[in-house]
Amino acid sequence: MTGGPGPEDGGKGFPPAGASPAHLFLVGVGGVGSAFLRQLDPVQDGALARSGVDLRLVGLFRSASGLHRLQGIRPDGAGERLVQEGKGGLDPITTILDDPAPRRILVDCTADPNIAEAYPRLLDDGVRVVAANKLAFSGSQEQWRRSRWGRRGRAYLEATVGAGLPVLRTAEDLVETGDQVRSVEAVLSGTLAFLCSEIMAGRPLSRAVEEARARGYTEPDPREDLSGQDVARKMLIVARELGLHVEPADVALEGFLASSLTGPSPGDGAPIADHDGGFRALRERALARGARLAYTGSLREGRIRVGLELVEPDHPFHGLRGSENTVLFRTERYGEPLAIRGPGAGPAVTAAGVLGDVLRAVRERGAWG
Amino acid sequence: MTGGPGPEDGGKGFPPAGASPAHLFLVGVGGVGSAFLRQLDPVQDGALARSGVDLRLVGLFRSASGLHRLQGIRPDGAGERLVQEGKGGLDPITTILDDPAPRRILVDCTADPNIAEAYPRLLDDGVRVVAANKLAFSGSQEQWRRSRWGRRGRAYLEATVGAGLPVLRTAEDLVETGDQVRSVEAVLSGTLAFLCSEIMAGRPLSRAVEEARARGYTEPDPREDLSGQDVARKMLIVARELGLHVEPADVALEGFLASSLTGPSPGDGAPIADHDGGFRALRERALARGARLAYTGSLREGRIRVGLELVEPDHPFHGLRGSENTVLFRTERYGEPLAIRGPGAGPAVTAAGVLGDVLRAVRERGAWG
Repeated sequence: MTGGPGPEDGGKGFPPAGASPAHLFLVGVGGVGSAFLRQLDPVQDGALARSGVDLRLVGLFRSASGLHRLQGIRPDGAGERLVQEGKGGLDPITTILDDPAPRRILVDCTADPNIAEAYPRLLDDGVRVVAANKLAFSGSQEQWRRSRWGRRGRAYLEATVGAGLPVLRTAEDLVETGDQVRSVEAVLSGTLAFLCSEIMAGRPLSRAVEEARARGYTEPDPREDLSGQDVARKMLIVARELGLHVEPADVALEGFLASSLTGPSPGDGAPIADHDGGFRALRERALARGARLAYTGSLREGRIRVGLELVEPDHPFHGLRGSENTVLFRTERYGEPLAIRGPGAGPAVTAAGVLGDVLRAVRERGAWG
Repeated sequence: MTGGPGPEDGGKGFPPAGASPAHLFLVGVGGVGSAFLRQLDPVQDGALARSGVDLRLVGLFRSASGLHRLQGIRPDGAGERLVQEGKGGLDPITTILDDPAPRRILVDCTADPNIAEAYPRLLDDGVRVVAANKLAFSGSQEQWRRSRWGRRGRAYLEATVGAGLPVLRTAEDLVETGDQVRSVEAVLSGTLAFLCSEIMAGRPLSRAVEEARARGYTEPDPREDLSGQDVARKMLIVARELGLHVEPADVALEGFLASSLTGPSPGDGAPIADHDGGFRALRERALARGARLAYTGSLREGRIRVGLELVEPDHPFHGLRGSENTVLFRTERYGEPLAIRGPGAGPAVTAAGVLGDVLRAVRERGAWG
């Protein structure tokens, strides 16, 4: 069950062969960037070749160094080549802007604000930007606007929300086909969903956090996950994709440890174990009414709210397990919600989200002709 | 929360204005075709104008007559104009092939095999085909192949499975990014899902069928729905999108009334009420183990199976209600499944699926340049 549809009458039916190759520049070769390189290699001989798309990896960058080869870099082993042959101090943005190819794509697999700040300049120069980096889209509305669309290019950012799940494409489709979105409800932190599952299974919060850290689910400092900022950023991105103008300060955000549901907080600086009692009591309340705990984001009447919630048995979130993400769109056409659900984090699925966007970027018409 | 992202620096950033308009031909102005016209009107002044896409409805056809206007037909009121001004016997296929526009799109909102048979000729002539009509894609593998990709165009068929739900786009993305699909499980008949819900609520099958007919959920003859053929057709389409070569005769299909779960069948010709007892007994069995009834399709190891199933409490289908559709993809990257769920039938959401495909068709590069 591999392979896929394609013209079987010679392989060059649609689009036609012969266009000059699109130049691909990858910045960031950590978990997601490395997974992207692994996925790109077979795709170049597979789906891309079958549909006649010529995509050439010509640039590869990490914080300290870069590689720029107009004849192309084979994705397989590219990470090692960067380490061995990379040129210190090679700036990715200047390199892309100076590249003569008419079709250029930046893939940003960093969390680097300096790369994010360059998107508007690149877009105006006709570069298409594919981002796993959330920063340009979850800061001010003004930065979002200049980073999402430029004079000659646009950004593709599916991987910033739910990794490979088709969340933003679905939002874009709803809006573009003229549907009216009434509300969005979402679970967008696999880490916090895992904590909720563990707590409902009877584990103390502090031990659940330890377990999550041991499995590599959390940031090095788990308090970054517990702050809820990452969920707030994703909800901002979803809301803006739906046409809402909203600033980070407008988000009603309750951190995981600061929820009013768990009673008076021991304070942000207190050890996590000081919160165990509050969560134990909350679990009892949930069990008593058959409810479950979830850390959710919602968008209603133009307002974003992020925080802990008790989810009743008849709610779609009640069935969530482990670290699953989900997004429910309620719209004029979808009174019963349209729901997307599945694993929403991890290098392989995030890289797949990036790669899907690259395929769209290379196929869409626009300033490239 | 309406509107959507777009360049705010004059509205013509991406893609650029000035390309010749794409010519749109709609065949079929029943429920879906009429809803499509209603949705197209605001989109032409909205998303399309904002992104600089010029799409012009120039042809409108129903079985008896057609209208062809190179200067364009305003979607609002187009159905009435077709009735008043339509020319008897105007053939849509010849009209499209004779139209001089370099960019042409056929939207097929019929269930007409004659239109479906013309796809290969249209695709080879560079026409892009957007279909709500399942026939070309659920017959022989050979017809699928010639209808899905042509020498100069491709077909877009999201609306044939799950209406507006992003099922086939997600399948295409999984395959194209190199994921390995291990299994698909789906509920793809809103009508049969409704019957299952009603039966589980204690209603006799024959009364549930009457209720479904009264609500307009069934074909004029409900036995067409009960045969399961429609689900088999949708599963064939999903399987082929995932790269499988499979013929209709290869589907292991058990009709709703012929399920081995309900014991010896009274026979196809028997009154539906003769099946009430079998379904009452099946409901008891389901309740005894906390299971629910679902009419499902599955794809495993290259084999499609369609039929009634008892769904255990921990299965994602257990939470389905009313007439919802859902598709679960289990893949190499998605061990926990990627799930799409929501209303999967009805004119408005089907038309939205068609319109989303039209937007993709008009934007994708290819033989159009």
